[in-house]
Amino acid sequence: MTAPDRPSPLTVERAVAAALREDLGDAGDITSAATVPADAAAAAAIAARKPGVIAGLDCALAAFRMTDPAVELTPRAGDGARVEPGDAILAVAGRARALLAAERVALNFLGHLSGIASATAALADAVRGTGAKIVCTRKTTPGLRALEKYAVRCGGGRNHRFGLYDAVMIKDNHIAAAGGVRPALAAAKAACGHMVRIEIEVDSLDQLKEALAGGADVVLLDNMAPDDLRRAVAMTGGRAVLEASGNVTAETVRAIAETGVDVISSGWITHSAPSLDLGLDFL
Amino acid sequence: MTAPDRPSPLTVERAVAAALREDLGDAGDITSAATVPADAAAAAAIAARKPGVIAGLDCALAAFRMTDPAVELTPRAGDGARVEPGDAILAVAGRARALLAAERVALNFLGHLSGIASATAALADAVRGTGAKIVCTRKTTPGLRALEKYAVRCGGGRNHRFGLYDAVMIKDNHIAAAGGVRPALAAAKAACGHMVRIEIEVDSLDQLKEALAGGADVVLLDNMAPDDLRRAVAMTGGRAVLEASGNVTAETVRAIAETGVDVISSGWITHSAPSLDLGLDFL
Amino acid sequence: MTAPDRPSPLTVERAVAAALREDLGDAGDITSAATVPADAAAAAAIAARKPGVIAGLDCALAAFRMTDPAVELTPRAGDGARVEPGDAILAVAGRARALLAAERVALNFLGHLSGIASATAALADAVRGTGAKIVCTRKTTPGLRALEKYAVRCGGGRNHRFGLYDAVMIKDNHIAAAGGVRPALAAAKAACGHMVRIEIEVDSLDQLKEALAGGADVVLLDNMAPDDLRRAVAMTGGRAVLEASGNVTAETVRAIAETGVDVISSGWITHSAPSLDLGLDFL
Amino acid sequence: MTAPDRPSPLTVERAVAAALREDLGDAGDITSAATVPADAAAAAAIAARKPGVIAGLDCALAAFRMTDPAVELTPRAGDGARVEPGDAILAVAGRARALLAAERVALNFLGHLSGIASATAALADAVRGTGAKIVCTRKTTPGLRALEKYAVRCGGGRNHRFGLYDAVMIKDNHIAAAGGVRPALAAAKAACGHMVRIEIEVDSLDQLKEALAGGADVVLLDNMAPDDLRRAVAMTGGRAVLEASGNVTAETVRAIAETGVDVISSGWITHSAPSLDLGLDFL
Amino acid sequence: MTAPDRPSPLTVERAVAAALREDLGDAGDITSAATVPADAAAAAAIAARKPGVIAGLDCALAAFRMTDPAVELTPRAGDGARVEPGDAILAVAGRARALLAAERVALNFLGHLSGIASATAALADAVRGTGAKIVCTRKTTPGLRALEKYAVRCGGGRNHRFGLYDAVMIKDNHIAAAGGVRPALAAAKAACGHMVRIEIEVDSLDQLKEALAGGADVVLLDNMAPDDLRRAVAMTGGRAVLEASGNVTAETVRAIAETGVDVISSGWITHSAPSLDLGLDFL
Amino acid sequence: MTAPDRPSPLTVERAVAAALREDLGDAGDITSAATVPADAAAAAAIAARKPGVIAGLDCALAAFRMTDPAVELTPRAGDGARVEPGDAILAVAGRARALLAAERVALNFLGHLSGIASATAALADAVRGTGAKIVCTRKTTPGLRALEKYAVRCGGGRNHRFGLYDAVMIKDNHIAAAGGVRPALAAAKAACGHMVRIEIEVDSLDQLKEALAGGADVVLLDNMAPDDLRRAVAMTGGRAVLEASGNVTAETVRAIAETGVDVISSGWITHSAPSLDLGLDFL
Repeated sequence: MTAPDRPSPLTVERAVAAALREDLGDAGDITSAATVPADAAAAAAIAARKPGVIAGLDCALAAFRMTDPAVELTPRAGDGARVEPGDAILAVAGRARALLAAERVALNFLGHLSGIASATAALADAVRGTGAKIVCTRKTTPGLRALEKYAVRCGGGRNHRFGLYDAVMIKDNHIAAAGGVRPALAAAKAACGHMVRIEIEVDSLDQLKEALAGGADVVLLDNMAPDDLRRAVAMTGGRAVLEASGNVTAETVRAIAETGVDVISSGWITHSAPSLDLGLDFL
Repeated sequence: MTAPDRPSPLTVERAVAAALREDLGDAGDITSAATVPADAAAAAAIAARKPGVIAGLDCALAAFRMTDPAVELTPRAGDGARVEPGDAILAVAGRARALLAAERVALNFLGHLSGIASATAALADAVRGTGAKIVCTRKTTPGLRALEKYAVRCGGGRNHRFGLYDAVMIKDNHIAAAGGVRPALAAAKAACGHMVRIEIEVDSLDQLKEALAGGADVVLLDNMAPDDLRRAVAMTGGRAVLEASGNVTAETVRAIAETGVDVISSGWITHSAPSLDLGLDFL
Repeated sequence: MTAPDRPSPLTVERAVAAALREDLGDAGDITSAATVPADAAAAAAIAARKPGVIAGLDCALAAFRMTDPAVELTPRAGDGARVEPGDAILAVAGRARALLAAERVALNFLGHLSGIASATAALADAVRGTGAKIVCTRKTTPGLRALEKYAVRCGGGRNHRFGLYDAVMIKDNHIAAAGGVRPALAAAKAACGHMVRIEIEVDSLDQLKEALAGGADVVLLDNMAPDDLRRAVAMTGGRAVLEASGNVTAETVRAIAETGVDVISSGWITHSAPSLDLGLDFL
Repeated sequence: MTAPDRPSPLTVERAVAAALREDLGDAGDITSAATVPADAAAAAAIAARKPGVIAGLDCALAAFRMTDPAVELTPRAGDGARVEPGDAILAVAGRARALLAAERVALNFLGHLSGIASATAALADAVRGTGAKIVCTRKTTPGLRALEKYAVRCGGGRNHRFGLYDAVMIKDNHIAAAGGVRPALAAAKAACGHMVRIEIEVDSLDQLKEALAGGADVVLLDNMAPDDLRRAVAMTGGRAVLEASGNVTAETVRAIAETGVDVISSGWITHSAPSLDLGLDFL
Repeated sequence: MTAPDRPSPLTVERAVAAALREDLGDAGDITSAATVPADAAAAAAIAARKPGVIAGLDCALAAFRMTDPAVELTPRAGDGARVEPGDAILAVAGRARALLAAERVALNFLGHLSGIASATAALADAVRGTGAKIVCTRKTTPGLRALEKYAVRCGGGRNHRFGLYDAVMIKDNHIAAAGGVRPALAAAKAACGHMVRIEIEVDSLDQLKEALAGGADVVLLDNMAPDDLRRAVAMTGGRAVLEASGNVTAETVRAIAETGVDVISSGWITHSAPSLDLGLDFL
Repeated sequence: MTAPDRPSPLTVERAVAAALREDLGDAGDITSAATVPADAAAAAAIAARKPGVIAGLDCALAAFRMTDPAVELTPRAGDGARVEPGDAILAVAGRARALLAAERVALNFLGHLSGIASATAALADAVRGTGAKIVCTRKTTPGLRALEKYAVRCGGGRNHRFGLYDAVMIKDNHIAAAGGVRPALAAAKAACGHMVRIEIEVDSLDQLKEALAGGADVVLLDNMAPDDLRRAVAMTGGRAVLEASGNVTAETVRAIAETGVDVISSGWITHSAPSLDLGLDFL
């Protein structure tokens, strides 16, 4: 698995500066200021304590650089790499006070994003060989969506829409307000530009039929049992992309994928993935 | 359990505005704009889908208010409240487009923070009756520390230091740099103001002895077995606050608490707690 | 023509606050402070001096509200409305000093955005009755894209993609880097999520053939003569959306639209539309 | 014509970072990420497609640098330079993905600001040899005033006041509120510091007489015919700076200048100048 | 003495929000949260402890409003008012926790700005009856210039230029670079717009002569003895505004004013004025 | 006296960028642009005009670097150094226009912060040999607290709490709300984390007794006469840190220190210290 395009430096720097401000406050690292000589040098390495997939290296690099522009940084594993306990991820050398000041921020980003990449990879591994792709949702941690969506790509997943702004997703309330599946799809096509894809959520095969007749690009089949999913795939015959969601776990995902749906979406990989256990060891 | 003091409106508004910008982008909610009449009204309620403890209500309120200043908001459960599946948390009534635009941001905050409160409450429940308190760490999600620390308080925990700036925590690298436990403690006392508490991490009972002799306010006993913790408690005799950390789970935490330590810290409750399952149902 | 969904208050307030800061500086409106009594009241109206289509009313409202929260604002024409010279757009009444402080900022937004809406409407009027839609590009004024894209909608146009992030547009450099039209389309499909539409720019009918075979959602026909556009429409037979661009003016656009293309894009309507002439008259 | 002092890096970087964020969004340049290898290099040049005067080079430089700190940038024409179709303005070489990500932002700044410089130069050329100077107004694009005022200087114009804060401009409403031309001028002199210049707008030669008697530094003669302007010049005899405004076009400006007024102001050069046509060609 | 035009709400709100964030941090007012019931109400009044002149009331109002939107605020003395020990300035009533959270920020603004107003008033009082005005300089506290310049106006002073941007001030280095007093003045006139005033600093009567011949609007006479100032006034005969600076104290200022100079500038009133002693007393 | 740990680059850069924006505005340094050639070089040195203690060198360095990244900076005296009139502090060499643009901002920071360091040092010198430490308060200039607290450390003082968030300070209103000294202390201990120190203000020896019995970490003795302070020291016997405040001047501080209190706090050193007189001399 190779790493996707790295996130914009503007995104990384803004997020990391905010996190450093949060951790350093107005008084700074008062422990190191009291106990570590100002000119003491140190070398250390971030290593994995548990197996997983790495994401967020640029955030860690930025955290160290922002506290010591002269720090030496040697990545040992790139975003998207699989690591085992003990594997080195990043070697750092520089002013000891600066390393200590940046340590927690670097680890918090790397642990959080690698946790998401690892959770994604677990699902992506489970569906390997089927045609289904694992995608994320808008159920992300407030303020970190760009980085979390990137972490999903590092884990071998793909991204669903990034927000309310970049694609249409018609749900039951929209259908009710518009007066039905067909009017809702017609309204979306009439209002939106030609670069916008239109997805609609259905809860029955009857609704699916209407959605296909209305020309939906994508249909979301929410919480359907595998047998219904299989019927939906057959009924659709490639006229629309089919997305399955609901009750997606490492145990269930393979069976869902084998129904022939194109895309399986999971909120869990972004809103509930545990942090990947990492540590910084001084040499 | 009652709710702690609510977070500052300045903190809430900044975080929620950033999350709304993230979700609305430049084009806004293009689905609702296309399918829902501009003047359509709606009423809905956020309800729990799983049992847990609520935190983050102010963030949800702000999300709805920022998209529709005239929205009617009726909280049904306050921060710190325990909820069961189906329990209402917040009733909302206003412009349908605005409710739909704010929905995901409101739920993302409420789910994330309630997840932390719920995880904290699970540990706090487990140690009830002992003298031990559950506390969080600096292992928080970048950018959300103030709100996550608040969620810990909603769950019945207490806060450890908020950052590098508000208390001293001397770890092995500091001890090495300062030339030992005693010199490190002396250096911290000499450098810091009289309002700063000083904690030191030790990995043996011998080091604990030194730490007590050096006048540490708090001693962190990392990854010690219950028997050693018990010995540490006896040896300390109330001269310092004792904090235990490492391998803290719902299964192990009671045994740790029963050793007599004062404080048990857990990174898991902030960096890995799964989101609490909540939903918004239109009426 | 009715107005599209109004821009987010977060977008409007941020842009207007920046513009007010720019105009007021640190010293404020020193002329009014010196010559107008602090408690003097005034009433005024913004009116059109030239015919056009209105866009940006929310920005004008925000400018007056931010300088005087108690100001009375009575819109006389909504976004999307066509106005003739002398038509009132917005009546304002409040503290004279505040009206004078907000006047230029309100007019600058309203004039700039209404200029874009008016330019768009001129093209949209010219193609009425054909199936073609007028769309904007990414050639917008730095910092104002969300509002300018909104102004295009007010003028009866639709939006192309908002940025590099929300749709794929494969141009000659991408084709060269990917090794041809087909490999470029295949790479985009393999890398992007299922909610992303893919457009490719071609400069010949041969390339169009390849683009259709590769499954492009949209094909951009740049600078093609009407005869070639007509051939492209026939060759495509509805398998892709066809967009024409290049040399689009009020004189040429009808002929382009009559070739049967679906979408005609113009950079001019956002980067070069003259401001609509408006004025604030005190009563 | 030589370039004026370049705008502050703080101004340039803030504007360009905002524009890059606007164009890259959270997902970044998804087209290049999918189709261009991460390590592909490219060289390109920005060249003029139409004749004009350049302004905004620093913005273009910043756009490329912010996406690739290692990019090589070779300016071929400085701000203030006159270019003909085909003339190179800036050569760039670096990572292909970064060049493609910065291209549109660089061109949008350069085209917009060079359009203003070119429109200014057209008026400045027309009055060459008279004593009159072309100046801009506060009718600028919200958020871009500093850069637009700079572009006016690049085009050979001079700046009027930058905002409400840096000079006094007494208009009819102020005169009415203060009780006449003389009281208004007296009030301004009494209230303002000794570093503030005072201009007053008059609509008749009678008012001009009063303004001169009241000691105005500058008098704005709005929409006066050339004959009246000539009379005003004679009546003033150098006691105040005379500014003419209203109906200023490339056709009329020479006649206005030849009346002997000192300054001719135009809103059109900032609010309605068409963008200068430029392109980036890959080599 | 009446208050000048109040500072822009945008300026006040930004400064006060920053100060509240600075004082509340991420944890908020932990003392009040622990000891004061959430619903306790309180009433209090800010009163003077020393005599002085008030400035900054809007900042105090904003501090209380931002922590409790429902707070009742009753100003007892406006900006520019002279107070004696014990005089009430502002009565507040609202949630006790909110009053305690805002107290220090409100007092810090009010004390700092009133200190500046009071120091200014002391000098302005001393020169009363002469024609001289007291003005401030650019020697202000970083980040607070707009508010400090406003405080000077509250104290009866006037403002010199606000920054490098709004007026020309030619000093010895500029004179040396330009090749003399006359060339420097000529260069400034050639480069600057017609709304910019030009001041030049001279250190001898010979230089003054040149400055007058060169048409300076204002001449700064730095550190000249009263006799020389008197000669300068005579030599100038009203052809330029004369500003004296250097060694300006409450003791010396009257003698300087009596030489006939127009303006006396003091850095001390902004960079070194002691805070006015104020207190908040709970009722 | 050696310098304390330097403030975070994030803090310094944000403050200095804001100050430069404040001084340069939108038009920049119009004087130097008009009179100094764009490529002229210059060398200069900041030197002390009065004796004092230096603080804020990083702010001065940042001001010069932000206006000319290629400037050469040679510090001659570090933060915490004592200087006499004429002593060089910082040598600078670079583009003349950039030095002139940064000069005032650099001096404003350095003068303000060195003024605070110098005032602190005067008190610290006066108590040398006693056990008492000089500490600052929250009476700081809004927006500059982190830098001012740092300046106190440069002057040989120590920091009290940084804000409402990092330590408990129980005052009379809290005592009243909580129902007495003992309940207030108990409430604080029950609510706060184990890393928070608790101080309580008392106004009599009786209250002190209660505070000691309640286990206060620190007791603030406000405005007590030396005899009472001495009694308080004796009564406390080391069970709590004792802080004296009120009427602290260079004349009184030694007598206060000799009572045996641990800490003496002064608001004057931050809110009223006069700026240290410094100048930039061109060579």
